[in-house]
Amino acid sequence: MSVLLKNGLVVTATGSYVADVFADGDIIKAVGSGLAMKADETVDATGKYILPGAIDPHTHIDMPFMGTTSSDDWKTGSIAAACGGTTCIVDFSLQGKGESLKDAVDRQKGKADGKTVVDYSIHPGVTDARPDVIDEVKKAIHEYGTPSFKIFLFYDFRVDDYAMIRLLEETKTHGGLVQVHAESFDMIRRLNEQFAATGKLGPMQHAKAHAILAEEEAVDRCTKAVEFTGSRIYIVHLSSSRGLWKVRQARDRGLRIQAETCPQYLTLTEDRYNEPDWNGAKYVMSPPLRPQESLDEMWLGLRDGDVQTVGTDHCPFNFKGQKDMNGKADYKVIPNGAPGIETMLMLMHTEGVVKGRITLERMVDVISTGTARMFGLSNKGAVAAGKDADLVVFDPKRKFTITQKRLHQNVDYTPWEGWEMTGMPQIVYSRGKKVAEWSGDQMKFVGAAGAGRFVKRVPLAAF
Amino acid sequence: MSVLLKNGLVVTATGSYVADVFADGDIIKAVGSGLAMKADETVDATGKYILPGAIDPHTHIDMPFMGTTSSDDWKTGSIAAACGGTTCIVDFSLQGKGESLKDAVDRQKGKADGKTVVDYSIHPGVTDARPDVIDEVKKAIHEYGTPSFKIFLFYDFRVDDYAMIRLLEETKTHGGLVQVHAESFDMIRRLNEQFAATGKLGPMQHAKAHAILAEEEAVDRCTKAVEFTGSRIYIVHLSSSRGLWKVRQARDRGLRIQAETCPQYLTLTEDRYNEPDWNGAKYVMSPPLRPQESLDEMWLGLRDGDVQTVGTDHCPFNFKGQKDMNGKADYKVIPNGAPGIETMLMLMHTEGVVKGRITLERMVDVISTGTARMFGLSNKGAVAAGKDADLVVFDPKRKFTITQKRLHQNVDYTPWEGWEMTGMPQIVYSRGKKVAEWSGDQMKFVGAAGAGRFVKRVPLAAF
Amino acid sequence: MSVLLKNGLVVTATGSYVADVFADGDIIKAVGSGLAMKADETVDATGKYILPGAIDPHTHIDMPFMGTTSSDDWKTGSIAAACGGTTCIVDFSLQGKGESLKDAVDRQKGKADGKTVVDYSIHPGVTDARPDVIDEVKKAIHEYGTPSFKIFLFYDFRVDDYAMIRLLEETKTHGGLVQVHAESFDMIRRLNEQFAATGKLGPMQHAKAHAILAEEEAVDRCTKAVEFTGSRIYIVHLSSSRGLWKVRQARDRGLRIQAETCPQYLTLTEDRYNEPDWNGAKYVMSPPLRPQESLDEMWLGLRDGDVQTVGTDHCPFNFKGQKDMNGKADYKVIPNGAPGIETMLMLMHTEGVVKGRITLERMVDVISTGTARMFGLSNKGAVAAGKDADLVVFDPKRKFTITQKRLHQNVDYTPWEGWEMTGMPQIVYSRGKKVAEWSGDQMKFVGAAGAGRFVKRVPLAAF
Amino acid sequence: MSVLLKNGLVVTATGSYVADVFADGDIIKAVGSGLAMKADETVDATGKYILPGAIDPHTHIDMPFMGTTSSDDWKTGSIAAACGGTTCIVDFSLQGKGESLKDAVDRQKGKADGKTVVDYSIHPGVTDARPDVIDEVKKAIHEYGTPSFKIFLFYDFRVDDYAMIRLLEETKTHGGLVQVHAESFDMIRRLNEQFAATGKLGPMQHAKAHAILAEEEAVDRCTKAVEFTGSRIYIVHLSSSRGLWKVRQARDRGLRIQAETCPQYLTLTEDRYNEPDWNGAKYVMSPPLRPQESLDEMWLGLRDGDVQTVGTDHCPFNFKGQKDMNGKADYKVIPNGAPGIETMLMLMHTEGVVKGRITLERMVDVISTGTARMFGLSNKGAVAAGKDADLVVFDPKRKFTITQKRLHQNVDYTPWEGWEMTGMPQIVYSRGKKVAEWSGDQMKFVGAAGAGRFVKRVPLAAF
Repeated sequence: MSVLLKNGLVVTATGSYVADVFADGDIIKAVGSGLAMKADETVDATGKYILPGAIDPHTHIDMPFMGTTSSDDWKTGSIAAACGGTTCIVDFSLQGKGESLKDAVDRQKGKADGKTVVDYSIHPGVTDARPDVIDEVKKAIHEYGTPSFKIFLFYDFRVDDYAMIRLLEETKTHGGLVQVHAESFDMIRRLNEQFAATGKLGPMQHAKAHAILAEEEAVDRCTKAVEFTGSRIYIVHLSSSRGLWKVRQARDRGLRIQAETCPQYLTLTEDRYNEPDWNGAKYVMSPPLRPQESLDEMWLGLRDGDVQTVGTDHCPFNFKGQKDMNGKADYKVIPNGAPGIETMLMLMHTEGVVKGRITLERMVDVISTGTARMFGLSNKGAVAAGKDADLVVFDPKRKFTITQKRLHQNVDYTPWEGWEMTGMPQIVYSRGKKVAEWSGDQMKFVGAAGAGRFVKRVPLAAF
Repeated sequence: MSVLLKNGLVVTATGSYVADVFADGDIIKAVGSGLAMKADETVDATGKYILPGAIDPHTHIDMPFMGTTSSDDWKTGSIAAACGGTTCIVDFSLQGKGESLKDAVDRQKGKADGKTVVDYSIHPGVTDARPDVIDEVKKAIHEYGTPSFKIFLFYDFRVDDYAMIRLLEETKTHGGLVQVHAESFDMIRRLNEQFAATGKLGPMQHAKAHAILAEEEAVDRCTKAVEFTGSRIYIVHLSSSRGLWKVRQARDRGLRIQAETCPQYLTLTEDRYNEPDWNGAKYVMSPPLRPQESLDEMWLGLRDGDVQTVGTDHCPFNFKGQKDMNGKADYKVIPNGAPGIETMLMLMHTEGVVKGRITLERMVDVISTGTARMFGLSNKGAVAAGKDADLVVFDPKRKFTITQKRLHQNVDYTPWEGWEMTGMPQIVYSRGKKVAEWSGDQMKFVGAAGAGRFVKRVPLAAF
Repeated sequence: MSVLLKNGLVVTATGSYVADVFADGDIIKAVGSGLAMKADETVDATGKYILPGAIDPHTHIDMPFMGTTSSDDWKTGSIAAACGGTTCIVDFSLQGKGESLKDAVDRQKGKADGKTVVDYSIHPGVTDARPDVIDEVKKAIHEYGTPSFKIFLFYDFRVDDYAMIRLLEETKTHGGLVQVHAESFDMIRRLNEQFAATGKLGPMQHAKAHAILAEEEAVDRCTKAVEFTGSRIYIVHLSSSRGLWKVRQARDRGLRIQAETCPQYLTLTEDRYNEPDWNGAKYVMSPPLRPQESLDEMWLGLRDGDVQTVGTDHCPFNFKGQKDMNGKADYKVIPNGAPGIETMLMLMHTEGVVKGRITLERMVDVISTGTARMFGLSNKGAVAAGKDADLVVFDPKRKFTITQKRLHQNVDYTPWEGWEMTGMPQIVYSRGKKVAEWSGDQMKFVGAAGAGRFVKRVPLAAF
Repeated sequence: MSVLLKNGLVVTATGSYVADVFADGDIIKAVGSGLAMKADETVDATGKYILPGAIDPHTHIDMPFMGTTSSDDWKTGSIAAACGGTTCIVDFSLQGKGESLKDAVDRQKGKADGKTVVDYSIHPGVTDARPDVIDEVKKAIHEYGTPSFKIFLFYDFRVDDYAMIRLLEETKTHGGLVQVHAESFDMIRRLNEQFAATGKLGPMQHAKAHAILAEEEAVDRCTKAVEFTGSRIYIVHLSSSRGLWKVRQARDRGLRIQAETCPQYLTLTEDRYNEPDWNGAKYVMSPPLRPQESLDEMWLGLRDGDVQTVGTDHCPFNFKGQKDMNGKADYKVIPNGAPGIETMLMLMHTEGVVKGRITLERMVDVISTGTARMFGLSNKGAVAAGKDADLVVFDPKRKFTITQKRLHQNVDYTPWEGWEMTGMPQIVYSRGKKVAEWSGDQMKFVGAAGAGRFVKRVPLAAF
């Protein structure tokens, strides 16, 4: 099976040019002008972009949390990804008490294999940093193919600074990366108590409890741990201007702090928590949505390189039946999370590129090329000979109104209901096979469950 | 005439991969695996890098200055460039009192055409910011193909802040870029006076007079002008840690300040001014060499993106006959400048990549891909279909000891005499034609005088 | 003539305590509990504060400017001061082209002597920094008794950075202090041009033209000059948050930058420029009034020590006859300045102390004790044995509504018309003699014209 | 009993002047010129300074720690204080597990009463932040007269951020102050482990384990807690430049962080740990001595107001018998602490004032006036009518060579052995009674054990 895309604008992280792309089997074979190869399928991409498939480095598929399970399994979740132009998912799997990292990786693999329609990998989450788990880090990097490790400074399964330091040391030695959910446990604990005393417990209080200062404190603590160890760290879902400033200041000093943000922190403000009919519960996630100033800064951070990647933190719970499963009286018992796996590329193009906040090239970097480099996906992330043919033929003029019923996510709402998009995938290829295409007024899945594979990632460079 | 480079490591600014590169005529036609095109010449590039030719955005060829003229003309200078792997030069041409920008551009074109062996462009230098000159900025961008404009805050031909502001406004409106030599005139004037009073007037006093604080002050003033106008600016030959900090702090706030540094500010310290026999005069340039701390920071700046480009500030004067033409009694009458056009790529590879300070990909960005984007060289700077076939087949293991007699620069010394290089060009192509290649123990020029062309640059994006 | 103040709260810059104060002739003789000296006059100060008289370090009395002369002469101006609790004035006298500093000092002395009712000194203003003027700095410090020197970075009589540097060097050597009006000439020039092009030329445009960035730029340039010379500098009438941040950042690095602000920058916002009937012209001063954020920061700066003194910049012009002498069509021809010499103490107490922004002790520091130390008024500024008996018995509960007709300033308006004050002087002594007292519903002058003397100031410490 | 000091230079925190001081009983009655009161004793203080007695806010007298007890009891410790010119001590008393704050205060009172020769107070130390202890804070402030509360972020008895936050809230509400020992437990834990693995366990490793970054991290965390609560905090024994920078940056933002340093962090460098014969153990204290750069910055901080007080952290252990009680093989088992209660004033004068680092007035502020204000010692800290007659007649020219045998501390060494002092107390008064005087070549104690009293402190102002 081979495919030849003709005369598209090939977009790289540092420049764009009109060319043909030829893929044979799983792999891109050539990018050139007037390529003459014979292909099973030829697509006229004139006026279209040829993008590397997006990579989502932050998802929670089929994850037990707060007494329920995120509503997408690997089949529905990966179909949604494919229809959004995302051809690789890196999901989290948290170690349980007493478990090894391998246990965590294998558990999630067991859920994904046979179901996922695009390639995937796993970030093991460290919640029990026993000496034998610290020792296992090397194996996870070199044997399991999972060189990135999530830790939390918030939640009951948080780790202390000592554990963070030990993980940073090990990942530095062996070529790994620690990813941190950075929020101060003690500050949020105290705000929760204070709000409990007032009886004001609606969704907006969730945002107030997860104060910006709580993010700033934790991010700043991470920068100290990085300096202490000489290692590098990756802040997941950075949400606030002040958190970003701590990242900037550390980076200015040459410390290797990287940061990811999410479409929700770029496009939605905390005003959402005031929506009537308890609708604010849809946006209860940690960290929460922020004021406009943070959104503006987050775009600047993406533009100027202080934020390097975008992930979705896709963690869907149905508004009816899950968000409200413990009643509506207290924000603290609302399952934390929101869907987003399907809407990343369209939002980044419409809100980022079309509105002039980032260039098209920068978009490709933060949702694909840079993500692949960050996480050791050595065969992904670029339209270049030898890479996996994970490709998106993208129509930059296609209009699409986001509405839950035209999306494929298994959840009863989307935070971007009614948003008008400019630019949508035309065809999406996963390792050379078409998995989704535009049809009528929406994307249509045309791939096969189980066609996706676990990708062994390579050890990471220090940069 | 066509060429096929086989199995080289194609290096882009964001990743590298093994592939073949096929060029036909002036242009790269395809990059692919196992390309089957027939070529006039096929090169086995196994184990070699295939790089886009370096671009030198900062040269002073055949320039009258301080009573003499820089010792390279366009033939010798461009041959030196080609032998070093640089396939495009952007030179400065300063407006004289009463002249138009066109006068300045045409004067330097007159010197280059028929002589240069690689492509080139011109940055006009604004020294007389009359209203009609401000008005001419638009034409320079859209008609002359020269969208970048050099100004000086030091020297007699400096401009004041008002002129800088006016130029920033015009370049913002029309798609241009102001380049600044940023040193405080008043501070250096005062230090010169103080040193004159002491009678200590050797080469080291040049470095002391051009104090780091003088650079910091001027850079910081530029950031204010950028904020005032909402425009962008480019600091040429940034040399000091403190200057870099001002760039970082401004960039953190979203101001669009870009910076260039030079191999000398990355590799040579101010101790050079103490070399015996007045040898320090070889390094009399403005800004001067700095202490080690600045070198370290400059590498960090390059690595982390706060410095975007490397240029050479190639401005050669013979040690005998030019540097000493006004005697050796006073550093103030030594012609300012040093040679470097030939040694940029080898130094960046050896000192940067081999020593682990920057990645190979980052090197390509700062000496070629990013430079092309910065200055509107839309057909240069990448190994990609449709671009000019300015290519370097680079042998990363080749050893070379820098010594003036094996270089092609028309000047009697090199600041890096005796330095051991790892990695040298094997073959250099300018628009598909071989212009230099390794031969015996050095590079050999194999091109033709006058084969290079003036490149009309395109208006610049705001980013 | 002797006076005994009984049981008042003696306020020092670092603490307050109830005591008696005994003065004999010009001088304070004792501060104690239950003092038994016999005095010509005994005052029961129970429940009152005993403050050192305020010192106003920034006035423009009887000054020719923009085609007219400030409306207070030394008699009316000093009476207003006395009635407001200010017992010492340090006024500016600008050197004319070709003049010496002595010329400037003598000119203003000639106007003051025989008229002023309280003591005074002069800051010569340097506008023509000839070498002989630089040489005269030493004499001004050691012979004239005027160790502080005003320069302007704005206005036609501004000096360049070179002159600033030279003055900083001389004052460092001989024990003087440079005071700077810090605004960027070039930025304001450009904004004036841009506004002229739009035809929008009302009072608010004055504030827009004197942009905060123009202050920040100039303040920051001053900090560089201080670092360059190792000297110290004093920013007069600091108005903006961003200017203050540059002061803070420099001070954090140990640079000796001091700053003065004015009651108007602490209490009035730029909204004033929008007052109807061209009323905004009353507030046309340079720098202009700022947004609320700057006011808040300025209070913090005063509280925490980054701002050390408060002066009034008293420069009165009648609204009718002076402000409008060149018509109302263009803000650029409105004489710059506003009255304030009489209202400093009452405003600082009401807006500062009563509202909890600064302590009573800090108020005394910034309007008297610290000012005396800053400017070498060695016999002023404290309620302590041996000091001049410049004393204010202050009633902290007295209410007073500011209204021009109850003030003594010779000008037809006050910016604080209708403001309710809490706390007013009860009696004001100048060197032991009563010069003003509360009478009915206002202060009454009871002193004598010409009783004030020129005070020779002492050379200044480096701190 | 009354005393009249004639013609001394009375030094206040903001100025100095020649005057007489008359005290009757415990209290200063008058400060004046030519005071005519009859006194039981008249002292000619011509050429001498009259200072408020120093206040030492940081001592550990008779304290059980690391298996032994600090070697000074309240008699020897307070005699040493008196002989050094310190007339008030505020000592720490740490709460034991399960104890109340009252238990802690009473325990130390029981040790001090009947023994101490000068006045004292207690800072309770919170180590077990139970809800009932948090509730007790109000009582400690308003009933016990102990409004300052020490916590530790290091040591086994450290508290977590939640407890710090709760204490900051309570002290804000009721007028108290939290004092913090700010070092990162987790970083030091890790460094201790790493060093244990290397077997290098000499005194210098103590300094390396208590890394500057560990102080910076903890100080920075405190600033976040202050911002979170809107309260104020006091960093005890700040030692490092980087810690100080975090204080500065927080203060610049208006956060109320105060800092104390100690003579050892101003005068001794970490080179001391390399002294032969395990002599470095004498300086094993936490935080440890630092490189010269930190000393320089600490002086700047004191000079410019970012550091407000000096305490000694007097915690003496005999070199023989205590420092070595667990052998010399491991720095971790050396009791932490060093003596200093007797040498504060002489060191601050000699190293600070005489060497031009701070003014005489600033010295008085940081060792007495400011300390009294900081900790609610409303009757101490100034030479002013109504204050306790805690006075030092100080001879600024007196020479003294520090040597343990001429000191009164009950410990077998002093860190400043052999240092030449310029300036020593002539006579020291505690509430009007002479307690120490110069005699021969040293200070002599002339007071009475038990004459000192517990001082109830007042609630603290927010500033």
